[in-house]
Amino acid sequence: MNREQALAIVKLHLTDHRYIHTLGVVETSIELANRFGANQEKAEIAAIFHDYAKFRDKEEMKKVVQEKLVDKSFLDYGDELLHAPCGAYFVKDEVGIDDKEILDAIYYHTTGRPEMTLLEKVVFLADYIEPGRKFKGVDDVRELAKVSLDDAIIQALENTIGFLMKRRQRVYPDTLATYNHLIKQKRRSDVSE
Amino acid sequence: MNREQALAIVKLHLTDHRYIHTLGVVETSIELANRFGANQEKAEIAAIFHDYAKFRDKEEMKKVVQEKLVDKSFLDYGDELLHAPCGAYFVKDEVGIDDKEILDAIYYHTTGRPEMTLLEKVVFLADYIEPGRKFKGVDDVRELAKVSLDDAIIQALENTIGFLMKRRQRVYPDTLATYNHLIKQKRRSDVSE
Repeated sequence: MNREQALAIVKLHLTDHRYIHTLGVVETSIELANRFGANQEKAEIAAIFHDYAKFRDKEEMKKVVQEKLVDKSFLDYGDELLHAPCGAYFVKDEVGIDDKEILDAIYYHTTGRPEMTLLEKVVFLADYIEPGRKFKGVDDVRELAKVSLDDAIIQALENTIGFLMKRRQRVYPDTLATYNHLIKQKRRSDVSE
Repeated sequence: MNREQALAIVKLHLTDHRYIHTLGVVETSIELANRFGANQEKAEIAAIFHDYAKFRDKEEMKKVVQEKLVDKSFLDYGDELLHAPCGAYFVKDEVGIDDKEILDAIYYHTTGRPEMTLLEKVVFLADYIEPGRKFKGVDDVRELAKVSLDDAIIQALENTIGFLMKRRQRVYPDTLATYNHLIKQKRRSDVSE
Protein backbone atom coordinates (compact mmCIF):
# COMPACT_ATOMS: atom_id res chain seq x y z
CA MET A 1 0.00 0.00 0.00
CA ASN A 2 1.42 3.38 -0.92
CA ARG A 3 1.01 6.68 0.88
CA GLU A 4 -1.89 7.90 -1.27
CA GLN A 5 -3.88 4.70 -0.89
CA ALA A 6 -3.35 4.70 2.87
CA LEU A 7 -4.35 8.36 3.20
CA ALA A 8 -7.46 7.79 1.08
CA ILE A 9 -8.57 5.00 3.42
CA VAL A 10 -7.94 6.91 6.63
CA LYS A 11 -9.57 10.12 5.37
CA LEU A 12 -12.93 8.36 5.32
CA HIS A 13 -12.68 7.72 9.06
CA LEU A 14 -11.62 11.18 10.20
CA THR A 15 -12.96 14.71 10.48
CA ASP A 16 -11.11 17.34 8.42
CA HIS A 17 -9.48 18.64 11.60
CA ARG A 18 -8.26 15.19 12.61
CA TYR A 19 -7.08 14.45 9.05
CA ILE A 20 -4.93 17.60 9.09
CA HIS A 21 -3.58 16.50 12.49
CA THR A 22 -2.77 13.11 10.93
CA LEU A 23 -0.87 14.75 8.06
CA GLY A 24 1.14 16.63 10.70
CA VAL A 25 1.91 13.41 12.55
CA VAL A 26 2.98 11.79 9.27
CA GLU A 27 5.44 14.55 8.40
CA THR A 28 6.81 14.71 11.95
CA SER A 29 7.13 10.92 12.16
CA ILE A 30 9.17 10.84 8.95
CA GLU A 31 11.37 13.62 10.27
CA LEU A 32 11.91 11.87 13.62
CA ALA A 33 12.44 8.49 11.95
CA ASN A 34 15.22 9.98 9.82
CA ARG A 35 16.72 11.86 12.74
CA PHE A 36 16.81 8.89 15.10
CA GLY A 37 17.25 6.00 12.68
CA ALA A 38 13.80 4.38 12.65
CA ASN A 39 12.31 2.80 9.53
CA GLN A 40 10.83 5.69 7.56
CA GLU A 41 8.27 3.67 5.59
CA LYS A 42 6.89 2.00 8.72
CA ALA A 43 6.80 5.31 10.56
CA GLU A 44 4.79 6.82 7.72
CA ILE A 45 2.20 4.02 7.60
CA ALA A 46 1.86 3.86 11.41
CA ALA A 47 1.39 7.64 11.54
CA ILE A 48 -1.21 7.62 8.77
CA PHE A 49 -3.28 5.04 10.64
CA HIS A 50 -2.57 6.07 14.25
CA ASP A 51 -6.00 7.70 14.75
CA TYR A 52 -7.92 5.31 12.47
CA ALA A 53 -10.38 4.48 15.29
CA LYS A 54 -10.60 7.99 16.77
CA PHE A 55 -14.28 8.36 15.90
CA ARG A 56 -15.46 4.79 16.23
CA ASP A 57 -18.44 4.13 18.41
CA LYS A 58 -17.31 3.84 22.05
CA GLU A 59 -19.47 0.82 22.78
CA GLU A 60 -18.09 -0.98 19.72
CA MET A 61 -14.57 -0.27 20.95
CA LYS A 62 -15.33 -1.48 24.47
CA LYS A 63 -16.64 -4.69 22.95
CA VAL A 64 -13.42 -5.09 20.97
CA VAL A 65 -11.37 -4.68 24.14
CA GLN A 66 -13.56 -7.18 25.98
CA GLU A 67 -13.65 -9.78 23.25
CA LYS A 68 -10.50 -9.39 21.19
CA LEU A 69 -7.72 -7.81 23.24
CA VAL A 70 -5.65 -9.47 25.93
CA ASP A 71 -5.27 -6.35 28.06
CA LYS A 72 -8.61 -5.11 29.39
CA SER A 73 -7.11 -2.43 31.64
CA PHE A 74 -7.86 0.35 29.13
CA LEU A 75 -11.52 0.12 30.12
CA ASP A 76 -10.78 1.53 33.57
CA TYR A 77 -9.11 4.76 32.53
CA GLY A 78 -11.53 6.69 30.37
CA ASP A 79 -12.85 6.30 26.83
CA GLU A 80 -10.12 8.49 25.36
CA LEU A 81 -7.62 5.63 25.51
CA LEU A 82 -9.71 3.12 23.55
CA HIS A 83 -8.95 4.37 20.04
CA ALA A 84 -5.27 3.40 20.23
CA PRO A 85 -5.45 -0.33 21.00
CA CYS A 86 -8.73 -0.67 19.07
CA GLY A 87 -7.17 1.23 16.16
CA ALA A 88 -4.42 -1.38 15.95
CA TYR A 89 -7.07 -4.09 15.97
CA PHE A 90 -9.19 -2.48 13.23
CA VAL A 91 -6.20 -1.59 11.06
CA LYS A 92 -5.20 -5.24 11.05
CA ASP A 93 -8.72 -6.58 10.67
CA GLU A 94 -10.10 -4.10 8.13
CA VAL A 95 -7.10 -2.67 6.30
CA GLY A 96 -5.07 -5.87 6.37
CA ILE A 97 -1.86 -4.45 7.77
CA ASP A 98 -0.19 -7.12 9.84
CA ASP A 99 3.26 -5.73 10.50
CA LYS A 100 3.60 -6.07 14.26
CA GLU A 101 5.88 -3.06 14.62
CA ILE A 102 3.41 -0.81 12.84
CA LEU A 103 0.45 -2.20 14.79
CA ASP A 104 2.29 -1.75 18.11
CA ALA A 105 3.12 1.85 17.22
CA ILE A 106 -0.62 2.45 16.76
CA TYR A 107 -1.54 0.44 19.86
CA TYR A 108 0.75 2.37 22.22
CA HIS A 109 0.62 5.84 20.67
CA THR A 110 -1.54 7.31 23.45
CA THR A 111 -0.40 5.53 26.61
CA GLY A 112 3.18 4.58 25.79
CA ARG A 113 4.63 1.56 27.56
CA PRO A 114 7.93 0.69 29.20
CA GLU A 115 10.36 -0.77 26.66
CA MET A 116 8.80 1.08 23.72
CA THR A 117 10.41 0.28 20.36
CA LEU A 118 12.09 3.05 18.39
CA LEU A 119 9.12 3.14 16.00
CA GLU A 120 6.64 3.41 18.90
CA LYS A 121 8.62 6.31 20.34
CA VAL A 122 8.67 8.12 16.99
CA VAL A 123 4.89 7.94 16.52
CA PHE A 124 4.16 8.70 20.18
CA LEU A 125 6.30 11.82 20.08
CA ALA A 126 5.15 12.93 16.62
CA ASP A 127 1.55 12.77 17.84
CA TYR A 128 2.52 15.13 20.66
CA ILE A 129 4.61 17.69 18.75
CA GLU A 130 3.18 17.77 15.19
CA PRO A 131 2.92 21.38 13.96
CA GLY A 132 -0.84 21.64 14.65
CA ARG A 133 -0.40 21.06 18.40
CA LYS A 134 -0.63 24.28 20.37
CA PHE A 135 -0.87 23.27 24.02
CA LYS A 136 1.23 24.57 26.87
CA GLY A 137 4.69 23.07 27.05
CA VAL A 138 4.75 21.71 23.50
CA ASP A 139 7.56 24.02 22.37
CA ASP A 140 9.87 22.72 25.09
CA VAL A 141 9.21 19.19 23.86
CA ARG A 142 9.88 20.27 20.25
CA GLU A 143 13.24 21.68 21.31
CA LEU A 144 14.18 18.48 23.14
CA ALA A 145 13.09 16.42 20.12
CA LYS A 146 15.86 18.02 18.09
CA VAL A 147 18.45 16.19 20.15
CA SER A 148 16.94 13.36 22.21
CA LEU A 149 13.92 11.19 21.56
CA ASP A 150 13.85 9.95 25.16
CA ASP A 151 14.26 13.37 26.77
CA ALA A 152 11.45 14.71 24.62
CA ILE A 153 9.18 11.81 25.55
CA ILE A 154 10.00 12.22 29.26
CA GLN A 155 8.95 15.88 29.04
CA ALA A 156 5.81 14.98 27.08
CA LEU A 157 4.89 12.41 29.73
CA GLU A 158 5.48 14.90 32.53
CA ASN A 159 3.22 17.41 30.74
CA THR A 160 0.50 14.84 30.03
CA ILE A 161 0.41 13.35 33.52
CA GLY A 162 0.39 16.85 35.04
CA PHE A 163 -2.41 17.93 32.70
CA LEU A 164 -4.56 14.91 33.54
CA MET A 165 -4.05 15.31 37.29
CA LYS A 166 -4.86 19.01 37.13
CA ARG A 167 -8.14 18.05 35.49
CA ARG A 168 -8.73 15.34 38.09
CA GLN A 169 -8.66 12.61 35.48
CA ARG A 170 -7.22 9.20 36.12
CA VAL A 171 -3.78 8.40 34.72
CA TYR A 172 -3.14 5.08 33.01
CA PRO A 173 -0.55 3.24 35.15
CA ASP A 174 1.60 2.23 32.20
CA THR A 175 1.98 5.87 31.22
CA LEU A 176 3.72 6.50 34.53
CA ALA A 177 5.61 3.22 34.08
CA THR A 178 6.88 4.52 30.72
CA TYR A 179 8.19 7.64 32.45
CA ASN A 180 9.77 5.61 35.29
CA HIS A 181 11.41 3.27 32.80
CA LEU A 182 12.92 6.07 30.73
CA ILE A 183 14.24 7.81 33.86
CA LYS A 184 15.82 4.60 35.08
CA GLN A 185 17.42 3.99 31.69
CA LYS A 186 18.69 7.56 31.51
CA ARG A 187 20.33 7.30 34.93
CA ARG A 188 21.97 4.06 33.93
CA SER A 189 23.40 5.66 30.77
CA ASP A 190 24.50 8.76 32.74
CA VAL A 191 26.45 6.50 35.07
CA SER A 192 28.09 4.56 32.26
CA GLU A 193 29.11 7.68 30.31
CA MET B 1 2.80 4.02 76.41
CA ASN B 2 1.93 7.64 76.96
CA ARG B 3 2.79 10.65 74.81
CA GLU B 4 5.85 11.66 76.83
CA GLN B 5 7.35 8.17 76.80
CA ALA B 6 6.79 7.85 73.08
CA LEU B 7 8.30 11.28 72.35
CA ALA B 8 11.31 10.49 74.52
CA ILE B 9 12.00 7.33 72.51
CA VAL B 10 11.59 8.97 69.12
CA LYS B 11 13.69 12.02 70.03
CA LEU B 12 16.76 9.80 70.30
CA HIS B 13 16.38 8.81 66.64
CA LEU B 14 15.81 12.23 65.10
CA THR B 15 17.65 15.48 64.45
CA ASP B 16 16.23 18.57 66.19
CA HIS B 17 14.76 19.72 62.89
CA ARG B 18 13.05 16.40 62.27
CA TYR B 19 11.82 16.24 65.87
CA ILE B 20 10.15 19.63 65.49
CA HIS B 21 8.59 18.37 62.22
CA THR B 22 7.33 15.33 64.13
CA LEU B 23 5.71 17.54 66.80
CA GLY B 24 3.95 19.38 63.98
CA VAL B 25 2.71 16.12 62.47
CA VAL B 26 1.46 15.04 65.91
CA GLU B 27 -0.57 18.22 66.47
CA THR B 28 -1.95 18.17 62.92
CA SER B 29 -2.80 14.46 63.13
CA ILE B 30 -4.79 15.02 66.32
CA GLU B 31 -6.59 17.94 64.70
CA LEU B 32 -7.42 15.94 61.54
CA ALA B 33 -8.42 12.87 63.57
CA ASN B 34 -10.91 14.97 65.51
CA ARG B 35 -12.17 16.70 62.38
CA PHE B 36 -12.72 13.54 60.36
CA GLY B 37 -13.53 11.02 63.09
CA ALA B 38 -10.35 8.94 63.32
CA ASN B 39 -9.06 7.50 66.58
CA GLN B 40 -7.16 10.35 68.24
CA GLU B 41 -4.91 8.21 70.42
CA LYS B 42 -3.82 6.03 67.53
CA ALA B 43 -3.27 9.07 65.33
CA GLU B 44 -1.04 10.57 67.99
CA ILE B 45 1.13 7.47 68.43
CA ALA B 46 1.39 6.85 64.66
CA ALA B 47 2.41 10.48 64.12
CA ILE B 48 5.01 10.38 66.89
CA PHE B 49 6.67 7.34 65.33
CA HIS B 50 6.08 8.06 61.62
CA ASP B 51 9.71 9.13 60.97
CA TYR B 52 11.29 6.76 63.50
CA ALA B 53 13.55 5.26 60.80
CA LYS B 54 14.27 8.52 58.94
CA PHE B 55 17.97 8.46 59.79
CA ARG B 56 18.62 4.74 59.86
CA ASP B 57 21.45 3.42 57.78
CA LYS B 58 20.24 2.89 54.18
CA GLU B 59 21.95 -0.46 53.84
CA GLU B 60 20.37 -1.69 57.06
CA MET B 61 16.94 -0.63 55.73
CA LYS B 62 17.49 -2.32 52.38
CA LYS B 63 18.36 -5.49 54.24
CA VAL B 64 15.12 -5.21 56.25
CA VAL B 65 13.12 -4.86 53.03
CA GLN B 66 14.91 -7.83 51.48
CA GLU B 67 14.67 -10.10 54.49
CA LYS B 68 11.63 -9.04 56.49
CA LEU B 69 9.08 -7.31 54.25
CA VAL B 70 6.74 -8.95 51.76
CA ASP B 71 6.78 -6.06 49.29
CA LYS B 72 10.26 -5.47 47.85
CA SER B 73 9.13 -2.86 45.32
CA PHE B 74 10.31 0.03 47.51
CA LEU B 75 13.88 -0.84 46.57
CA ASP B 76 13.33 0.29 42.98
CA TYR B 77 12.16 3.83 43.67
CA GLY B 78 14.84 5.62 45.60
CA ASP B 79 16.12 5.43 49.15
CA GLU B 80 13.75 8.15 50.35
CA LEU B 81 10.87 5.67 50.52
CA LEU B 82 12.60 3.12 52.74
CA HIS B 83 12.07 4.84 56.09
CA ALA B 84 8.29 4.41 56.00
CA PRO B 85 7.92 0.62 55.64
CA CYS B 86 11.14 0.03 57.62
CA GLY B 87 9.90 2.43 60.28
CA ALA B 88 6.81 0.29 60.76
CA TYR B 89 9.05 -2.76 61.06
CA PHE B 90 11.42 -1.17 63.61
CA VAL B 91 8.60 0.36 65.67
CA LYS B 92 7.08 -3.07 66.06
CA ASP B 93 10.40 -4.85 66.60
CA GLU B 94 12.15 -2.35 68.85
CA VAL B 95 9.40 -0.32 70.51
CA GLY B 96 6.94 -3.17 70.78
CA ILE B 97 3.94 -1.47 69.23
CA ASP B 98 1.88 -4.09 67.46
CA ASP B 99 -1.35 -2.28 66.64
CA LYS B 100 -1.76 -2.98 62.92
CA GLU B 101 -3.61 0.27 62.23
CA ILE B 102 -0.81 2.32 63.75
CA LEU B 103 1.88 0.31 61.99
CA ASP B 104 0.10 0.66 58.63
CA ALA B 105 -0.21 4.41 59.11
CA ILE B 106 3.59 4.52 59.52
CA TYR B 107 4.17 2.05 56.67
CA TYR B 108 2.16 4.03 54.11
CA HIS B 109 2.82 7.59 55.26
CA THR B 110 5.12 8.43 52.34
CA THR B 111 3.70 6.50 49.39
CA GLY B 112 0.04 6.19 50.28
CA ARG B 113 -1.85 3.21 48.86
CA PRO B 114 -5.27 2.64 47.30
CA GLU B 115 -7.85 1.85 49.98
CA MET B 116 -6.01 3.75 52.71
CA THR B 117 -7.67 3.57 56.10
CA LEU B 118 -8.91 6.75 57.75
CA LEU B 119 -5.93 6.68 60.14
CA GLU B 120 -3.48 6.27 57.25
CA LYS B 121 -5.04 9.24 55.49
CA VAL B 122 -4.79 11.40 58.60
CA VAL B 123 -1.07 10.74 59.13
CA PHE B 124 -0.28 10.97 55.39
CA LEU B 125 -1.95 14.36 55.14
CA ALA B 126 -0.62 15.67 58.48
CA ASP B 127 2.91 14.86 57.29
CA TYR B 128 2.26 17.00 54.22
CA ILE B 129 0.59 20.03 55.84
CA GLU B 130 2.05 20.29 59.36
CA PRO B 131 2.84 23.95 60.20
CA GLY B 132 6.58 23.57 59.49
CA ARG B 133 6.02 22.68 55.84
CA LYS B 134 6.71 25.60 53.52
CA PHE B 135 6.76 24.17 50.00
CA LYS B 136 4.81 25.44 47.02
CA GLY B 137 1.17 24.43 47.00
CA VAL B 138 0.96 23.49 50.67
CA ASP B 139 -1.47 26.29 51.53
CA ASP B 140 -3.98 25.04 48.96
CA VAL B 141 -3.82 21.62 50.57
CA ARG B 142 -4.28 23.17 54.03
CA GLU B 143 -7.42 24.92 52.80
CA LEU B 144 -8.83 21.71 51.34
CA ALA B 145 -8.02 19.86 54.57
CA LYS B 146 -10.50 22.06 56.39
CA VAL B 147 -13.36 20.38 54.54
CA SER B 148 -12.29 17.18 52.81
CA LEU B 149 -9.60 14.68 53.70
CA ASP B 150 -9.76 13.05 50.26
CA ASP B 151 -9.68 16.30 48.27
CA ALA B 152 -6.68 17.45 50.29
CA ILE B 153 -4.87 14.17 49.68
CA ILE B 154 -5.65 14.29 45.96
CA GLN B 155 -4.09 17.76 45.78
CA ALA B 156 -1.09 16.64 47.84
CA LEU B 157 -0.58 13.67 45.50
CA GLU B 158 -0.83 15.91 42.43
CA ASN B 159 1.78 18.23 43.95
CA THR B 160 4.11 15.41 44.96
CA ILE B 161 3.96 13.55 41.66
CA GLY B 162 4.46 16.81 39.75
CA PHE B 163 7.39 17.74 42.00
CA LEU B 164 9.09 14.38 41.51
CA MET B 165 8.61 14.43 37.73
CA LYS B 166 9.95 17.96 37.48
CA ARG B 167 13.07 16.73 39.25
CA ARG B 168 13.26 13.68 36.98
CA GLN B 169 12.81 11.31 39.87
CA ARG B 170 10.89 8.07 39.61
CA VAL B 171 7.39 7.94 41.06
CA TYR B 172 6.30 4.94 43.10
CA PRO B 173 3.45 3.28 41.16
CA ASP B 174 1.18 2.92 44.19
CA THR B 175 1.36 6.67 44.76
CA LEU B 176 -0.31 7.18 41.38
CA ALA B 177 -2.65 4.28 42.18
CA THR B 178 -3.69 6.10 45.37
CA TYR B 179 -4.56 9.17 43.30
CA ASN B 180 -6.43 7.10 40.68
CA HIS B 181 -8.37 5.29 43.41
CA LEU B 182 -9.45 8.50 45.15
CA ILE B 183 -10.53 10.05 41.83
CA LYS B 184 -12.58 6.98 40.96
CA GLN B 185 -14.21 6.99 44.40
CA LYS B 186 -14.95 10.71 44.18
CA ARG B 187 -16.65 10.31 40.80
CA ARG B 188 -18.73 7.48 42.15
CA SER B 189 -19.88 9.59 45.09
CA ASP B 190 -20.54 12.59 42.81
CA VAL B 191 -22.83 10.40 40.70
CA SER B 192 -24.72 9.05 43.69
CA GLU B 193 -25.29 12.46 45.25
